[in-house]
Amino acid sequence: MGPFPFSAIVGQEDMKQAMILTAIDPGIGGVLVFGDRGTGKSTAVRGLAALLPPIAAVAGCPVNSEHEGQIPDWAKVTDREVVQKPTPVIDLPLGATEDRVVGALDIEKALTLGEKAFEPGLLARANRGYLYIDEVNLLEDHLVDLLLDVAQSGLNVVEREGLSIRHAARFVLVGSGNPEEGELRPQLLDRFGLSVEVTSPKDIDTRIEVIRRRDAYDRDPTSFLTNWRGTDMDLRAQIVMARGALGQVEAGEDRLRDCAELCVALGSDGLRGELTLLRAARALAAFDSDTSVTRDHLRRVAPSALRHRLRRDPLDEAGSTTRVERVVEEVLG
Amino acid sequence: MGPFPFSAIVGQEDMKQAMILTAIDPGIGGVLVFGDRGTGKSTAVRGLAALLPPIAAVAGCPVNSEHEGQIPDWAKVTDREVVQKPTPVIDLPLGATEDRVVGALDIEKALTLGEKAFEPGLLARANRGYLYIDEVNLLEDHLVDLLLDVAQSGLNVVEREGLSIRHAARFVLVGSGNPEEGELRPQLLDRFGLSVEVTSPKDIDTRIEVIRRRDAYDRDPTSFLTNWRGTDMDLRAQIVMARGALGQVEAGEDRLRDCAELCVALGSDGLRGELTLLRAARALAAFDSDTSVTRDHLRRVAPSALRHRLRRDPLDEAGSTTRVERVVEEVLG
Amino acid sequence: MGPFPFSAIVGQEDMKQAMILTAIDPGIGGVLVFGDRGTGKSTAVRGLAALLPPIAAVAGCPVNSEHEGQIPDWAKVTDREVVQKPTPVIDLPLGATEDRVVGALDIEKALTLGEKAFEPGLLARANRGYLYIDEVNLLEDHLVDLLLDVAQSGLNVVEREGLSIRHAARFVLVGSGNPEEGELRPQLLDRFGLSVEVTSPKDIDTRIEVIRRRDAYDRDPTSFLTNWRGTDMDLRAQIVMARGALGQVEAGEDRLRDCAELCVALGSDGLRGELTLLRAARALAAFDSDTSVTRDHLRRVAPSALRHRLRRDPLDEAGSTTRVERVVEEVLG
Amino acid sequence: MGPFPFSAIVGQEDMKQAMILTAIDPGIGGVLVFGDRGTGKSTAVRGLAALLPPIAAVAGCPVNSEHEGQIPDWAKVTDREVVQKPTPVIDLPLGATEDRVVGALDIEKALTLGEKAFEPGLLARANRGYLYIDEVNLLEDHLVDLLLDVAQSGLNVVEREGLSIRHAARFVLVGSGNPEEGELRPQLLDRFGLSVEVTSPKDIDTRIEVIRRRDAYDRDPTSFLTNWRGTDMDLRAQIVMARGALGQVEAGEDRLRDCAELCVALGSDGLRGELTLLRAARALAAFDSDTSVTRDHLRRVAPSALRHRLRRDPLDEAGSTTRVERVVEEVLG
Amino acid sequence: MGPFPFSAIVGQEDMKQAMILTAIDPGIGGVLVFGDRGTGKSTAVRGLAALLPPIAAVAGCPVNSEHEGQIPDWAKVTDREVVQKPTPVIDLPLGATEDRVVGALDIEKALTLGEKAFEPGLLARANRGYLYIDEVNLLEDHLVDLLLDVAQSGLNVVEREGLSIRHAARFVLVGSGNPEEGELRPQLLDRFGLSVEVTSPKDIDTRIEVIRRRDAYDRDPTSFLTNWRGTDMDLRAQIVMARGALGQVEAGEDRLRDCAELCVALGSDGLRGELTLLRAARALAAFDSDTSVTRDHLRRVAPSALRHRLRRDPLDEAGSTTRVERVVEEVLG
Amino acid sequence: MGPFPFSAIVGQEDMKQAMILTAIDPGIGGVLVFGDRGTGKSTAVRGLAALLPPIAAVAGCPVNSEHEGQIPDWAKVTDREVVQKPTPVIDLPLGATEDRVVGALDIEKALTLGEKAFEPGLLARANRGYLYIDEVNLLEDHLVDLLLDVAQSGLNVVEREGLSIRHAARFVLVGSGNPEEGELRPQLLDRFGLSVEVTSPKDIDTRIEVIRRRDAYDRDPTSFLTNWRGTDMDLRAQIVMARGALGQVEAGEDRLRDCAELCVALGSDGLRGELTLLRAARALAAFDSDTSVTRDHLRRVAPSALRHRLRRDPLDEAGSTTRVERVVEEVLG
Repeated sequence: MGPFPFSAIVGQEDMKQAMILTAIDPGIGGVLVFGDRGTGKSTAVRGLAALLPPIAAVAGCPVNSEHEGQIPDWAKVTDREVVQKPTPVIDLPLGATEDRVVGALDIEKALTLGEKAFEPGLLARANRGYLYIDEVNLLEDHLVDLLLDVAQSGLNVVEREGLSIRHAARFVLVGSGNPEEGELRPQLLDRFGLSVEVTSPKDIDTRIEVIRRRDAYDRDPTSFLTNWRGTDMDLRAQIVMARGALGQVEAGEDRLRDCAELCVALGSDGLRGELTLLRAARALAAFDSDTSVTRDHLRRVAPSALRHRLRRDPLDEAGSTTRVERVVEEVLG
Repeated sequence: MGPFPFSAIVGQEDMKQAMILTAIDPGIGGVLVFGDRGTGKSTAVRGLAALLPPIAAVAGCPVNSEHEGQIPDWAKVTDREVVQKPTPVIDLPLGATEDRVVGALDIEKALTLGEKAFEPGLLARANRGYLYIDEVNLLEDHLVDLLLDVAQSGLNVVEREGLSIRHAARFVLVGSGNPEEGELRPQLLDRFGLSVEVTSPKDIDTRIEVIRRRDAYDRDPTSFLTNWRGTDMDLRAQIVMARGALGQVEAGEDRLRDCAELCVALGSDGLRGELTLLRAARALAAFDSDTSVTRDHLRRVAPSALRHRLRRDPLDEAGSTTRVERVVEEVLG
Repeated sequence: MGPFPFSAIVGQEDMKQAMILTAIDPGIGGVLVFGDRGTGKSTAVRGLAALLPPIAAVAGCPVNSEHEGQIPDWAKVTDREVVQKPTPVIDLPLGATEDRVVGALDIEKALTLGEKAFEPGLLARANRGYLYIDEVNLLEDHLVDLLLDVAQSGLNVVEREGLSIRHAARFVLVGSGNPEEGELRPQLLDRFGLSVEVTSPKDIDTRIEVIRRRDAYDRDPTSFLTNWRGTDMDLRAQIVMARGALGQVEAGEDRLRDCAELCVALGSDGLRGELTLLRAARALAAFDSDTSVTRDHLRRVAPSALRHRLRRDPLDEAGSTTRVERVVEEVLG
Repeated sequence: MGPFPFSAIVGQEDMKQAMILTAIDPGIGGVLVFGDRGTGKSTAVRGLAALLPPIAAVAGCPVNSEHEGQIPDWAKVTDREVVQKPTPVIDLPLGATEDRVVGALDIEKALTLGEKAFEPGLLARANRGYLYIDEVNLLEDHLVDLLLDVAQSGLNVVEREGLSIRHAARFVLVGSGNPEEGELRPQLLDRFGLSVEVTSPKDIDTRIEVIRRRDAYDRDPTSFLTNWRGTDMDLRAQIVMARGALGQVEAGEDRLRDCAELCVALGSDGLRGELTLLRAARALAAFDSDTSVTRDHLRRVAPSALRHRLRRDPLDEAGSTTRVERVVEEVLG
Repeated sequence: MGPFPFSAIVGQEDMKQAMILTAIDPGIGGVLVFGDRGTGKSTAVRGLAALLPPIAAVAGCPVNSEHEGQIPDWAKVTDREVVQKPTPVIDLPLGATEDRVVGALDIEKALTLGEKAFEPGLLARANRGYLYIDEVNLLEDHLVDLLLDVAQSGLNVVEREGLSIRHAARFVLVGSGNPEEGELRPQLLDRFGLSVEVTSPKDIDTRIEVIRRRDAYDRDPTSFLTNWRGTDMDLRAQIVMARGALGQVEAGEDRLRDCAELCVALGSDGLRGELTLLRAARALAAFDSDTSVTRDHLRRVAPSALRHRLRRDPLDEAGSTTRVERVVEEVLG
Repeated sequence: MGPFPFSAIVGQEDMKQAMILTAIDPGIGGVLVFGDRGTGKSTAVRGLAALLPPIAAVAGCPVNSEHEGQIPDWAKVTDREVVQKPTPVIDLPLGATEDRVVGALDIEKALTLGEKAFEPGLLARANRGYLYIDEVNLLEDHLVDLLLDVAQSGLNVVEREGLSIRHAARFVLVGSGNPEEGELRPQLLDRFGLSVEVTSPKDIDTRIEVIRRRDAYDRDPTSFLTNWRGTDMDLRAQIVMARGALGQVEAGEDRLRDCAELCVALGSDGLRGELTLLRAARALAAFDSDTSVTRDHLRRVAPSALRHRLRRDPLDEAGSTTRVERVVEEVLG
């Protein structure tokens, strides 16, 4: 029985756009979803899994290698046929131990065969897909740090228990969190590509629509899934097309200047802001079938790309979303 | 010698209703029982065990599979006959280690046969039944979180000690707690379906009745159990009947609107409030042999479904139960 | 060489009565002994051991089963003869590890035979007897909680190291503590049946009597023990007789009302107060060879049964013993 | 090369008397030595070792059993000849692990023979002798507690690692401590028999004498030891004689009354004060070759026996030694 | 695919100079890079790797020995041919355990062959190269201390798990850190040779240039690397030449006096300031093809060599860079 | 390549004298070196190693036994020839584990031969030499305590992991520390024999001389070592001669009185002050080829011997060195 369809989620456009953009260009980086409890954060991620296009991968490869030449030498792969697999969406379960995340010595082989084999972890399985962490702000800093490090470099480096292993681990990290339960360090925030805020709808009719769809799904999931299958597949097709077009989308000198001016005006530290803004806008242009990045694309992705990179301004009481929107207004007109 | 009969509990109607509703529709979620010490919280749970209808399950299956096709592949099941078993009510004993809760590597097999077998834990045994935790507020947050996660998804995902296992674990979590001994985080509260408050009766005659029944049970349990067997069996029959009728109970557009308006008026975060309210009211309607949900059903379950989802309001000194009742009065008339 | 005789203890009537009552009806629950250092708390417990009547038990059974049918299936019992054994009085030594308290995997058998056998702990040995803990307030809360849990349910549930064992563990928990060294949580206090306070005598002649008896015992224990043997045996006989009579002692409607009114007047939480008061009074009546519970019995056990269940009253500076006595005076006249 | 001779210690009469008294009657209990650094606390203990009379013990017995019948059943003793051994004086070295103190599973035998043998620890070796702990106030409370418990009961009870062992462990605990570096809990203080305070001499000539003797010992230990051998042996003879006479020393009714009145006047908690005072006075009388305890004996041991049992009196700024002396003056004249 | 070219980094001259100087004379010591997030710290280090000249080393040697005579005796080296290897740049990954850093017992050999072999760690691999630690201020002090100790002595001393090993470990430690996330202890600061501060450019055109280059690299790395290869190789040649010339660069009496006067004027503790200043200036002179150290060389390296060795001056609010520059102005004119 | 020569150290006379004195009479105790970072503390210790005269020792003995009769029974020594070895100077590396310091069970032998052999640690290797600890104030108190205990008694007592071992461990402990990074407890301070303070020279010419020598050593160590070899060897000869003369140096009654009066006037606790002062002065006299201790000798060693034994005097703001010098002036004239 499939999860609640991505397309059937009522509202929450910001979150859905962020997930679609990273599906088009995983290089944008991870997505951080802030929000009240019960706003459907994990529903969206689980829905995304069913939506994403399948990947071509070596059947028996623990890191989903695209072709034989990429299989890591520590992997004993017998089935080398290339098959279509669903895009992996790996859930980091609560209580997962670090050895299961990064991989570890295979104890069984060590004890029975006396050999030091590597047993890959969740990071291996997430290669070329998504890694989802609920309540990322409750994870220990060093683990978040490690996950972001791997996500950014695309390489999982394991130096423990006498093992010295590295393997590809390219994935988009999606973390959800409740800002009331402890914040992430700014250093970590900056390493997420996009961030979105989700809230419960305040409007009665929207709420009724949410309850109606959920109740329909709970009572008869099969019919509900059948009804929404088409909408989901249209979205998938649009993502696949955008991926292909991405390399051709141009961003002129003026757009680079727009990016730089926006970030200077906002006082965001470092240069990750500009770079992410540019990549996200380019992905959005591709999704819109546009051939070049426009100010409108920048405007639509700026809050997600910049909101979590602002310094706190004690004299400006506006929330960070408002501050971004105000500056976008001033700079881009 | 059986436990104190559920029907013989004097008063505590709120708690008894919550337990009956989750017996009808386990999808409502867990029950949190707050209350002074010595108010019979654990007596009620242990009584519930004797009351619940038996389930059909594969005799030798560690997760109580309903039929052969559901037996997990890691389970070596020799006795595959389908038999009637009591509804499992599993007690999480103090000092249980995490490996015994979620399951772990079978050390004996690892040492003697050199093979990596999974030894299921309490979550496996609780599948299709109840898991009871006394003083849930004394448990570490990460364990409560894990239990709620499993209870909600119905799936126990184990990633530890080189194991990568998942198995069905659908159960109702019943937790008791004393609010004076440390509170649960709001994030955790929200994930319980219903909550009830129990207090010692203040009325002398009620107290005498409690002592008399308890003293009678302590001095001659066999006679006492015989006397109450009939009442318990009537209740069981009513629950079984309600389960069958649940799918046919209708909830009209007006009721959905009632749910949404109640939650907006109360300012409860997220949408779990509405959904739980609706499910609990539908279960109550089924228990009453009604074919559609009425405002009366909503009224009777609203405190249990919403009480633990309110934000603290520093200007409103009323307790949360009072606040729910006041809003129910305003919205439903 | 035997311990200092129970009967030779000078004064401390409250403590001695509490121990005798639980010897008559272990269902009353544990005894908590508060007091200054050097007031003979551990002397009394060790003296109790020599006083208690022997039990009939299967010779080789690790949980002192009364007859063959009660031997747990994990126990390999070769000597099944029923013999007379002293009532077990088990001391929880400082530094005992949790595995030795609840029982654990038998490491020797695991290593040599490769089999997962259960090695019972102190709780098994305490079955049908007493478990004594000096300075119970220094124990970690979770261990006290566990001990009270087992004492109350009469069942030791072990879920650890791949073991899933349960066995009978009915015992009276006797804990001593110094209130100046950290208090027990109210939740734990409530689960002890009786509590007593012991203090050093202030009267010179009593103190001389204590020193004289102790000095006599230290210098010539054999003669001292011979001298007091008769008094101890008389007390044992009276306890055995009271056990037999307990089932016939009546407690009329008026007495139940007395219990309830006392507890309501004292504002004790929950209903454990009433129930313990009733059971202790009934045991005292049996000890007095009375056939029904009178107000005098209630009066004599009320302080021990209720003292530790009062809420702190910031407006009432009287100690808890005084508060109980004042209310007893008002309610029972 | 022997340690610095006990008799050659300049001054520090209080400390020397306390050690001599416990050598005569070990039942007096442990000795606590408070004092500045560099005041020769450990020198005194090490000197005591050379002074004490030898004991008759089974040659191969790990607990120094007096005769064959006392050898514990877990001990594989091959050499059962009774020989003269020096009184054991065992040093608890810093960093000794708990398993080496109480004894533990013999890992070697477990690994090679697959059998669960007990390997005795320092407590076994200290049986019938002394256990010395430098800076006892830096030890963890639970370990001090355990040591006092064993010292008092004379029995080491081991319940760990699947072992359930008990063996004789009668010894006098000597602990030194610097009150500036953290205090012992009152509960622990009370369980030491005697306490003494040592300070550096303030008088120049005494200090010169100390330096001269120490310098002489450091430069030519052999001659120094030869010179003091006779004095040490005289003291040993006097101790041996006092041990024999101890049983005949009488303490009349008046002396018991003196003890009780002293303790009541000082407000010392519990009755350990009286009992220790009486035993210490009796040992002193034996050392003096007196046949009954006199007020003079009480006067000379009262500070050591009572000083550490006083409650803090915020209105009385005098040190505890002064307070004891003042009360001794008032009560005994 | 190579990393972003070192030469293509826009601006950040201070950081680039520090890295070049330590490449010429590793004896200068480690480099500490402070700065906002996203300022390209790790990009620079990774670029440095590709730039550095290769080293001649024994092919199979775990510590990159220059010739056969240097191979440590614990290393079983079969391939002893001397080959050209890239200068090692080792990354200390987050979560690396201490055993993998310093080396440890080879568990596999211990278990299978029963022999105690040493398995070298990251410090061995870093010999004759660089060790890079991102967010060095988040590492535990004792580990930073250990790394600096080894870096300074050039010797890794391992005393653990029954091993007693020492091997060459000469490397330059490069640590990056964000001063807002916790500071290093002054004791540790002093042991780094040079320190630099990096900030995001504030100038729009520079920012656009950064984005343009980065975007070009991200979209077509191969062309970008080809374009910059020549510039990188010119820099490498200049470094190789400077290494050769280093021994001939003279520093006259006046320059030593300049160094001493600068440090006394700045009040820097110890003498590491002068020594580092001298070595860094000499390396810069060699890089400039000068044959003696001039005041201009001192001026250009003084901030990097001294900035992190100042005592905090509560009366001087200027940053440490400003303070160094002011004093350089006063002393060197 | 040898370390920087001891004789070539510029200034720091106090530190050099302290090290020379303990080389003459190790019984003086350890040396504590306080000072700013970068003042050459570790350089001095490493230079001392090369300076000290060799010792005669059994070639294969793990504790450097002087002759065959001293070899401990747990040591399997095959090569029993007596050879000349350099005086051991052992470095306690950061991160050394306690088992490597005191010695531990030899895991390899335990696993392969199944026997419980002792593997000696750093304390064994330091016997008859020096043990150097950098930043001793960062070590855990219990480890410093243990090291001082062993250093003082000359005996390493190991009671752990089922081992019960003792072996000679006579060494001088040299600890360096930065007083700004946490102080040692007074209890520990007192157990060091001497203490010295080192500071950077403030005089420009001295600083230049330091830089010139260091730079010369760094650029051409071989020539530099050759130049200073003679001076170092003269110093060694003078130390060897002083050792031989030590036993004949007299300290008259007046000198003992001087020692006592100095310590009383300074209010130093305990008597370790006098004894250390006397021993250090005697060693200095021997070094000066004098046959008796004079007031001048006392004057020159008093600051090192007493500085770290003063109580803090809140009314006297002078540093401890000043206070010692003032009192020396008053008492010795």
